[in-house]
Amino acid sequence: MDLLDEPVPGVGTYEDFNTIDWVREKSKDRDRHREIATKSKESVLALMKSISDAFSGWLLMLLVGLMSGALAGGIDISAHWMTDLKEGVCLNGFWFNHEHCCWNSNETTFQERDKCPNWKSWAELIVGTNDGPFAYIMNYLMYVCWALLFSFLAVSLVRAFAPYACGSGIPEIKTILSGFIIRGYLGKWTLVIKTITLVLAVSSGLSLGKEGPLVHVACCCANILCHLFTKYRRNEAKRRETLWRSFFAALVAAFTLRSINPFGNSRLVLFYVEFHSPWHLLELIPFVLLGIFGGIWGAFFIRANIAWCRRRKTTRLGHYPVLEVLVVTAVTALLAFPNSYTRMSTSELISELFNDCGLLDSSQLCNYANVSVTKSSSNALPDRPAGQDVYTAMWQLSLALVFKMLITVVTFGMKVPSGLFIPSMAVGAIAGRLLGVGMEQLAYYHHDWVIFRGWCSPGADCITPGLYAMVGAAACLGGVTRMTVSLVVIMFELTGGLEYIVPLMAATMTSKWVADALGREGIYEAHIRLNGYPFLEPKEEFSHKTLAMDVMRPRRSDPPLSVITQDGMSVEDVESLIAETSYSGFPVVVSHESQRLVGFVQRRDLVISIENARQRQEGVVSASRIFFTEYTPPQPPNSPPPLKLRGIMDLSPFTVTDHTAMDIVVDIFRKLGLRQCLVTHNGRLLGIITKKDILKHMAQMANRDPDSILFN
Amino acid sequence: MDLLDEPVPGVGTYEDFNTIDWVREKSKDRDRHREIATKSKESVLALMKSISDAFSGWLLMLLVGLMSGALAGGIDISAHWMTDLKEGVCLNGFWFNHEHCCWNSNETTFQERDKCPNWKSWAELIVGTNDGPFAYIMNYLMYVCWALLFSFLAVSLVRAFAPYACGSGIPEIKTILSGFIIRGYLGKWTLVIKTITLVLAVSSGLSLGKEGPLVHVACCCANILCHLFTKYRRNEAKRRETLWRSFFAALVAAFTLRSINPFGNSRLVLFYVEFHSPWHLLELIPFVLLGIFGGIWGAFFIRANIAWCRRRKTTRLGHYPVLEVLVVTAVTALLAFPNSYTRMSTSELISELFNDCGLLDSSQLCNYANVSVTKSSSNALPDRPAGQDVYTAMWQLSLALVFKMLITVVTFGMKVPSGLFIPSMAVGAIAGRLLGVGMEQLAYYHHDWVIFRGWCSPGADCITPGLYAMVGAAACLGGVTRMTVSLVVIMFELTGGLEYIVPLMAATMTSKWVADALGREGIYEAHIRLNGYPFLEPKEEFSHKTLAMDVMRPRRSDPPLSVITQDGMSVEDVESLIAETSYSGFPVVVSHESQRLVGFVQRRDLVISIENARQRQEGVVSASRIFFTEYTPPQPPNSPPPLKLRGIMDLSPFTVTDHTAMDIVVDIFRKLGLRQCLVTHNGRLLGIITKKDILKHMAQMANRDPDSILFN
Repeated sequence: MDLLDEPVPGVGTYEDFNTIDWVREKSKDRDRHREIATKSKESVLALMKSISDAFSGWLLMLLVGLMSGALAGGIDISAHWMTDLKEGVCLNGFWFNHEHCCWNSNETTFQERDKCPNWKSWAELIVGTNDGPFAYIMNYLMYVCWALLFSFLAVSLVRAFAPYACGSGIPEIKTILSGFIIRGYLGKWTLVIKTITLVLAVSSGLSLGKEGPLVHVACCCANILCHLFTKYRRNEAKRRETLWRSFFAALVAAFTLRSINPFGNSRLVLFYVEFHSPWHLLELIPFVLLGIFGGIWGAFFIRANIAWCRRRKTTRLGHYPVLEVLVVTAVTALLAFPNSYTRMSTSELISELFNDCGLLDSSQLCNYANVSVTKSSSNALPDRPAGQDVYTAMWQLSLALVFKMLITVVTFGMKVPSGLFIPSMAVGAIAGRLLGVGMEQLAYYHHDWVIFRGWCSPGADCITPGLYAMVGAAACLGGVTRMTVSLVVIMFELTGGLEYIVPLMAATMTSKWVADALGREGIYEAHIRLNGYPFLEPKEEFSHKTLAMDVMRPRRSDPPLSVITQDGMSVEDVESLIAETSYSGFPVVVSHESQRLVGFVQRRDLVISIENARQRQEGVVSASRIFFTEYTPPQPPNSPPPLKLRGIMDLSPFTVTDHTAMDIVVDIFRKLGLRQCLVTHNGRLLGIITKKDILKHMAQMANRDPDSILFN
Repeated sequence: MDLLDEPVPGVGTYEDFNTIDWVREKSKDRDRHREIATKSKESVLALMKSISDAFSGWLLMLLVGLMSGALAGGIDISAHWMTDLKEGVCLNGFWFNHEHCCWNSNETTFQERDKCPNWKSWAELIVGTNDGPFAYIMNYLMYVCWALLFSFLAVSLVRAFAPYACGSGIPEIKTILSGFIIRGYLGKWTLVIKTITLVLAVSSGLSLGKEGPLVHVACCCANILCHLFTKYRRNEAKRRETLWRSFFAALVAAFTLRSINPFGNSRLVLFYVEFHSPWHLLELIPFVLLGIFGGIWGAFFIRANIAWCRRRKTTRLGHYPVLEVLVVTAVTALLAFPNSYTRMSTSELISELFNDCGLLDSSQLCNYANVSVTKSSSNALPDRPAGQDVYTAMWQLSLALVFKMLITVVTFGMKVPSGLFIPSMAVGAIAGRLLGVGMEQLAYYHHDWVIFRGWCSPGADCITPGLYAMVGAAACLGGVTRMTVSLVVIMFELTGGLEYIVPLMAATMTSKWVADALGREGIYEAHIRLNGYPFLEPKEEFSHKTLAMDVMRPRRSDPPLSVITQDGMSVEDVESLIAETSYSGFPVVVSHESQRLVGFVQRRDLVISIENARQRQEGVVSASRIFFTEYTPPQPPNSPPPLKLRGIMDLSPFTVTDHTAMDIVVDIFRKLGLRQCLVTHNGRLLGIITKKDILKHMAQMANRDPDSILFN
């Protein structure tokens, strides 16, 4: 290496939509760390630097936590307020939501407080009354108008300022974490627009959640804050480490943050459940049934949603994203308003479904006929016959179930921020609650049946419909995302119900098995594949008996591999090679005859270095010879000065032999995070395998279109 | 490959004390799986086989669970009985332990029941009374004699039948799991002898626990049961997968099994704690202090124990293991008997220290002066001044602490099964309880101090000494084993106290930091290094700037690498090469001049194949030429038939270039589980790096003796 040369700026960075080389990045970071550690022994200042370097990771995570936590809190409050704005306004100040407006009201029960005088529905404001068909129509109209306005703003902002802000972001973040460059995906514009439009999209009443987008927001925060620290700014691998931590933390926080209520009222702490009675072993049968439902729904949802998204991508439908959003919003609002279970926000719905009916609960779902409650203890309520209201609620919930199932398929993937956790959970919770109430009534009226005898005597509280809702929600979420253990942990986080590990495990495992049998991919993997990102699924086993030589390029009929010789080529030769080919890198060999491998040089580094040399280095012309050797032989007197490029060459490229089984090659790529690997036969360079080649080969083996892999 | 050749038995297996090649083993398993999957489409029988193959993993784990669970239960019961045997015997039947003997006694309180008439101490049996100095001496003598008998039996059995049964087994199992062969370490003799001697060692009253050995027992079960299934018997990697699951399951079970009491009495369910009052933020200071104590003790223990074990290995001390065990047992028994806290079994001691004093507790540790308890609620007891008994207990505990700290250092590593979890926890629990009681008394007498004001008013229950004991136990365990998160999970398992996550986290993190600052290795890693096993620590960062060429063999001054050419050598040549060298494998090259790499052949496979060919294949003599090529050229008419060995050659050996940084090489070895890697320069074979070379290099870089790495 010519030590006089300064490192050329740009060498060692990546182009957009390219895969990073983990080995190189990690090695770079170790070099940096080594340098700091060596210097730290020399002076106090360097020692301080080394200490601050060691602690910068902790500081960064703290900042990310504070920033994304603040944003999540802001989103939560704003979405709450704007959701209520669809129904009415507070006279104390338009910036109060329904709950805070009525906070200081003198009424004692929650029902009366909800009707506090300061909170006016739109009908009350416009026509003066809240009763009668005209007022109903007025409210209906305002509800739809607000929804359309919010969604129009959301989709317009996304279209105009940050196209990357749409969707849940999780498939892209998974790809980025695996080592892919998408410039701007985690940038400041995406952050700002995603935060604003997420509030709008959630408030518009569309069937979407905010958990997935919140994870994207947190990753944006992490990426932006990474720029404050050299250690993270300069190294793609280190930055991904931080992103990964943020991703994980955000995924957990997205569910637990809502339990930290900034206003201290415990009424709206969502999903906190406390059941009074344990579950019985026989109840595992309905829990497994819920698991099967969750699995089938998950598989159906993924297929339908992917088919719809593919249609959007390939037909003219995709040319009118604003119109699409407006139509879906209009349909959602029109159908949701008449049914009280779809009119309320989805998280409120889930909270109500998870809730175990107490004695004082006066909601429609808890309207049971009050039979004698003498035998029971203070906490446990015995199973009771359902009242008329419960039957009405069952019908409404059934309609809500069908509505949610269908509308979510078309909603997820539109050009607005949209998460999938809450809608999936809602579907499962409705199904679970329906089954739970059904079981409860069955047990009440037929407690002499064999299956109920022994554990469900009259007057006992044997079935808890809220638990069924919780299990159903976990099953559906499992079917869609294919998480199992992590999902169960999330459900604990959500509900604090540690004693329900077995029901939750049974349902999520069943759901995963059923869904896997119907289609191997989770929703995020399916979207990654739909978009053609180069993502190597960590768990997928490669089980075909192909060898490296079947996958490498060039194929047998192709022209030979484009290589650079270590000392024989001029600047002109290399430039024409670059112009003729589009490969992202070239192997360097001793000579064309021997094909002995010396190293590997990235196209981008080569282009930047030659350009730089032509501008800065005196005498470098097209005829200058390029040397990758350690020592440059003396040049003939009249020839132009040589260009020494050993410094940009990777001296340790990975190689495998042509007889290496592809399952081993896939394993190496996955475990080491390679970008490319060279193939040799008896010591001669034969070809190259890139990550893209591997993904294409895997697609081909699975009878899919190999051209669906779009990026390097 | 010559397809007419049957696979030679033994090819592809490993010698004792050698490292396995994970890539080869995994690839073999994938081949097997692929074959079954292909066949399963052909016939119903094959389909059934494929299904049973898929479920054999579950079945195996079930069997392992049942077998090791039964063994653990048996060990628990036997150890209990034999521990009690040291003090007395039951007249109803000598096979009853103290508790079961008194089970049907009519006395109401625990104290009186412990003195039930059927249970006779040895003094009562021999001299007729339990009072007076003579009876005390009699009991003392019997206690020491039984202890000596048990430990003599234990060490003799280990010496005579299964030397591998000694110690905790965890360092060796960690090494085996990482891919090392120690034949017989998990065999049936080890299982039988370890089970029996574990009972004896625990009963002898030595300062050791049974959790570590129980993990070894479970792994033995798994290894033996693996032989029932071809899938696991034939594949070292698959077997290790099962072992790893068993290891993890056993580690958890070792702590939870004791909570499933086979006799249904809840009194001896160890360690179940229920504290009545929450902890205060200021208490984090003593918790962190306990963490520092745990860290210092952990580091001290590891150094002292390793120094002692090294002395045992290198001096004449190691020649008298039986005598050593007897001396240590005698010292332990003689010192332990007079102090009631060391006389009781260590797990009973921990249980008593974890316990929060209730109103009805009559133990020495709970003898507080009863001041007015009017203000408190039913559950919470206010802090009270300590009574005389508590001060006595404090003195005894202090002595017990010093005793346990010193005796454990010489006990761990003797030729009897010995675990470390329980003694470490005991040290921490004693220290924690001492600090806890101190804090409690401080808060009681000085509740007007600034630090106590506001949260510790008189009559409040502000300090829970039992919690301090629990935190101390976790801190010491953390200092010795360097686990943090997993340790906190284990403490939850043990105690069911989910609300103490912050104190436990604070103490274990501090303990780990302090201990790491004083010495990087945990006790198990230290023992692995002491024994010279080839274990590549998964977390240790390799931070030196050396290249592959600095580590590879041959060194610059050495003779060149021993290679085999693919077509030029006769059987005689190869046999003399094998005889002259002791390498465990040889690279195969095109020719000595070109040094182009073709493949790699294992010494063992080569020896077996040549031997087999000489015996079975007609005409193979010393002059026969060996071919590793795909096609054998026609031989001259009178020459002996050639030997085709392409089938035993690994066609995809791993290669790196000589300029590859060692940190990358270490990463590759770690992530892929390699056994060796070849080094090339510009396509020419230059040298070889084995796992042993890497470990030696790492030892050298850390200024340790590189010859401490003993095995391949």
